[in-house]
Amino acid sequence: QVTGPSGEGTDAVVILEKTPFQEEKVSDLLKKHTKLELQMRNDIYSTYHLYPPPELSEIKTTVVYPATEKHLQKYLHQEVHLIRETWEDYKTITLPFIQSQSFSVQWVYNILEKKAEADRIIYENPDPCNGFVLVPDLKWNQNQLDDLYLIALVHRREVKSLRDLTAEHLPLLRSILEEGKEAVAKRFGVPGSQLRIYLHYQPSYYHLHVHFTALSYDAPGSSVERAHLLTDVIDNLALDSTYYQKRALTFALRADELLLKKFQEAGRV
Amino acid sequence: QVTGPSGEGTDAVVILEKTPFQEEKVSDLLKKHTKLELQMRNDIYSTYHLYPPPELSEIKTTVVYPATEKHLQKYLHQEVHLIRETWEDYKTITLPFIQSQSFSVQWVYNILEKKAEADRIIYENPDPCNGFVLVPDLKWNQNQLDDLYLIALVHRREVKSLRDLTAEHLPLLRSILEEGKEAVAKRFGVPGSQLRIYLHYQPSYYHLHVHFTALSYDAPGSSVERAHLLTDVIDNLALDSTYYQKRALTFALRADELLLKKFQEAGRV
Repeated sequence: QVTGPSGEGTDAVVILEKTPFQEEKVSDLLKKHTKLELQMRNDIYSTYHLYPPPELSEIKTTVVYPATEKHLQKYLHQEVHLIRETWEDYKTITLPFIQSQSFSVQWVYNILEKKAEADRIIYENPDPCNGFVLVPDLKWNQNQLDDLYLIALVHRREVKSLRDLTAEHLPLLRSILEEGKEAVAKRFGVPGSQLRIYLHYQPSYYHLHVHFTALSYDAPGSSVERAHLLTDVIDNLALDSTYYQKRALTFALRADELLLKKFQEAGRV
Repeated sequence: QVTGPSGEGTDAVVILEKTPFQEEKVSDLLKKHTKLELQMRNDIYSTYHLYPPPELSEIKTTVVYPATEKHLQKYLHQEVHLIRETWEDYKTITLPFIQSQSFSVQWVYNILEKKAEADRIIYENPDPCNGFVLVPDLKWNQNQLDDLYLIALVHRREVKSLRDLTAEHLPLLRSILEEGKEAVAKRFGVPGSQLRIYLHYQPSYYHLHVHFTALSYDAPGSSVERAHLLTDVIDNLALDSTYYQKRALTFALRADELLLKKFQEAGRV
């Protein structure tokens, strides 16, 4: 990610992304005017630098112009810090922060009430207590299964995150796990054993939701410092109803996030 | 990854990898003979295809030639399946499998006994029970901190994996966590809050070891279906000494892995 100044003293954000190889162009890459430079040879192994012709090495470029200070901040390299949040921290730092921000989840309610994206719903269990709606995530264009990404949004509105879950929520979580897998298998032909099904902590919005991604897809947010497998959550709650009101939880915060400031003010970082 | 036949009926494996942008070459990329093709414009946002000159879009190429059937299998696209291993599964399927394979960890013993890589040791706690050796992982070339990757190998030899851990191992695990963080901060200047410290399950070798990677590095094997944060492991054992002899654990297996066949034979997949 690159931020460069434009003329006239106005900033622009320029984002450069290398795109995946296209299978049908690989044979071209290996023969067509391609310069190959030997780097190392050892027994049956050798490595080269390959310099492809421009038409075979497209870079996806996104420009934001004119860019505001907020745009610049968003894309500037930021240090990331791990937080180890105890239950005490949650109650005294995180929860008051969430409440003070009063993040709107109106867009979630619009989906649940069929006021928006109604045609995108893949599956619904309409039960007000144990039900949910399954929709494709906006990051997934549905053109291929490689980066399959769906979200289950629960109908209940008072569950903010993992921290609120107790054994009381087991029927809800089990219905998401079982019915969600079944719905994805039926609609997209992807079996449950090839799905990564998990919650985020911290989530990006405080209305309980569960991520379904293709196991072979290295989905953003699927790493161990943010993702919690739904099967693990279910087992932990079955072993101990107050597991998530006891256990410290780890997550990463960017240097510019307000919640990090709250932890710093409390002397916890 | 591409597998293509060579002449003379002998196979070769050709691996193509796009490399990260080099910061100092980005400005060249934006001016030098670069073809830019507008794709979409909406308000302040626009996207382009950028076609860079060959010298700015190097592809790392690795060739294995001649390649055996085993090489081909390793790189061919394989389906991946999630396994949910109960403690019962571990005892009746996984453990007998590990024992029957008698994987050699001689290379680990060589490091612990200073017979190999002695000059690479970053830190050592020599205690035979709670001690360990910290070494850079072979995947890390130590040229930059962005992909920092170290491994802590414990001196004790009877602990195969996460499944063997009980509260008895807490002093060992805590020494790895605390002393490991301190050693990385001292040697590389990276603070503990910017390290992802975790175990793999399944591990790739059955001698207990802990991974230290840069938090900002999307390290292979750091996703939720394989990685277990050391802090979480410690907290789980402190809550319940037999946590890892109770809880089902999830991991992914490739279609060609023998262990998957064992789970299939047992009717567990």
